[in-house]
Amino acid sequence: MGQVDDLIRDRMRSEHAPRIPEVSAHLINAGGKRLRPMLTLASAHMCGYGGVHHLKLAATVEFIHSATLLHDDVVDESGQRRGRATANLLWDNKSSILVGDYLFARAFQLMVETENLRVLNILSNAAAVIAEGEVLQLTAAQNLGTDEATYLKVVRGKTAALFSAATQVGGVIAGAQEPLVEALFTYGDALGIAFQMADDLLDYGGSAEATGKNVGDDFRERKLTLPVIKAVAKADAEERAFWTRVIEKGDQGEGDLEHALGLLARHGTMEETRLEAVAWADKAKAALGVFPASDLRDNMIDLADYVVARLR
Amino acid sequence: MGQVDDLIRDRMRSEHAPRIPEVSAHLINAGGKRLRPMLTLASAHMCGYGGVHHLKLAATVEFIHSATLLHDDVVDESGQRRGRATANLLWDNKSSILVGDYLFARAFQLMVETENLRVLNILSNAAAVIAEGEVLQLTAAQNLGTDEATYLKVVRGKTAALFSAATQVGGVIAGAQEPLVEALFTYGDALGIAFQMADDLLDYGGSAEATGKNVGDDFRERKLTLPVIKAVAKADAEERAFWTRVIEKGDQGEGDLEHALGLLARHGTMEETRLEAVAWADKAKAALGVFPASDLRDNMIDLADYVVARLR
Repeated sequence: MGQVDDLIRDRMRSEHAPRIPEVSAHLINAGGKRLRPMLTLASAHMCGYGGVHHLKLAATVEFIHSATLLHDDVVDESGQRRGRATANLLWDNKSSILVGDYLFARAFQLMVETENLRVLNILSNAAAVIAEGEVLQLTAAQNLGTDEATYLKVVRGKTAALFSAATQVGGVIAGAQEPLVEALFTYGDALGIAFQMADDLLDYGGSAEATGKNVGDDFRERKLTLPVIKAVAKADAEERAFWTRVIEKGDQGEGDLEHALGLLARHGTMEETRLEAVAWADKAKAALGVFPASDLRDNMIDLADYVVARLR
Repeated sequence: MGQVDDLIRDRMRSEHAPRIPEVSAHLINAGGKRLRPMLTLASAHMCGYGGVHHLKLAATVEFIHSATLLHDDVVDESGQRRGRATANLLWDNKSSILVGDYLFARAFQLMVETENLRVLNILSNAAAVIAEGEVLQLTAAQNLGTDEATYLKVVRGKTAALFSAATQVGGVIAGAQEPLVEALFTYGDALGIAFQMADDLLDYGGSAEATGKNVGDDFRERKLTLPVIKAVAKADAEERAFWTRVIEKGDQGEGDLEHALGLLARHGTMEETRLEAVAWADKAKAALGVFPASDLRDNMIDLADYVVARLR
């Protein structure tokens, strides 16, 4: 990961526009978990890769992720990310949009350097699926009709697509056989879904210290996440009127978040969501069964456990 | 171009997020000149290309351009583009940011389909240079110290990089010899610079009908373009105080645009800028001298003349 970090620092430079490394460094050095690039390195190593292209792919994945975060924070009008003020707040929305575009372009430059067309195919597809998932989330927000199938599409797009691309390209660059590449895809996809479900749950249950975000952000942004979708499905007339007011009409006042939390608890939808996240984590772990036992495989299994262990 | 338009329409679709084709179609069907994709087709044909990949590259170039426009209009807070309300005004900034990201990703998918690594290299570099130019423009705005060298860097980034990539990849996909590819690059680069200088001039001199923009947009956005940079360099103390107030401090009132226009006229900087644009157009035309005479070559020469003929 040290080599990946060096590469990231090197490629976020700009000869002409010093604003670029300022904004990028603020985000990238903020102590993110570097989960996605680690997945690429681990996947490549688990497939016996001995080259250096996996470093470029790991940096590619982190750049795509960082570009997405910069744009997300503008779209969501967020003020806090990883426990620090967001770039859109410290500089402005313009810088976040344009520096995000720069990181996105740098990601493509890096992946082109690997000269592996299948890798380019996987990562450019992932980038399109991510953007599509973000647009779908935007249009599904404030819409009480959003169902669990739509939620899953959004999550697969905005989160799981990059997880599964990160693991898959690790296998592809190593020249692994197809069943192994498929297993890595399944692991990344399921892990990404478990991760996002956990994130959405923590938005209603975690502390700002644990998540780096404020509790209730999704509620205030009127996003339909799984605990709420499940609660809306079980709502009586009075509860439905409440959800219509706070989510569809956006008429939120003091005590509404607490009332929403009460409804989630009453219908047990937090626990239901947690169990679904655990099931996806289990699916991720099971996919790794095609690989022989190794420390790396154990680490990837532990990671899937960790993602949902935060929820207890 | 009909085939390119079909490809563009096909690839701006989205199975899951209908907002994407709505926003894209509003921009792409707005009667843009399709200058950049035409340059790719013309360049490929002039190098004797008989395949179909140039269609994908032409669509790639138009998608990158469209993504840039969507983000630019958010950054510039524009309300009008090509004589119509902008997407950020009709929908919202969020849609423009995310649909721009989608088009950008679609551009990369399309170019990967050509399986030509040199083309991928050229276009991913161009994307990075474009974003860098936009950031540089952002940080140079409101800064009276901006000189002509910085202006040229911005213009090469935000405009000429895509023109030169559009022409160059036409030659590369055709397998043209190096001197021809280089000539196409030089043509695109010089044409792009002439085009942007003309655009910046029209912002002070053209009509909304001719440009699809409002006269004085750059002035209101406090952008330092060539006519102003030249006028600032020739300013006496009183004129400098004026520029400091309206550009650096952003304190603009009634009559200020007219006063600025008077200063540009007094110092002859509009005419100086026009002559520089003409010189770049001449450089573009001269570069085509390595190609044998043909109708296509004549068309590309006419295009360079047209770009600056708008200024008379």
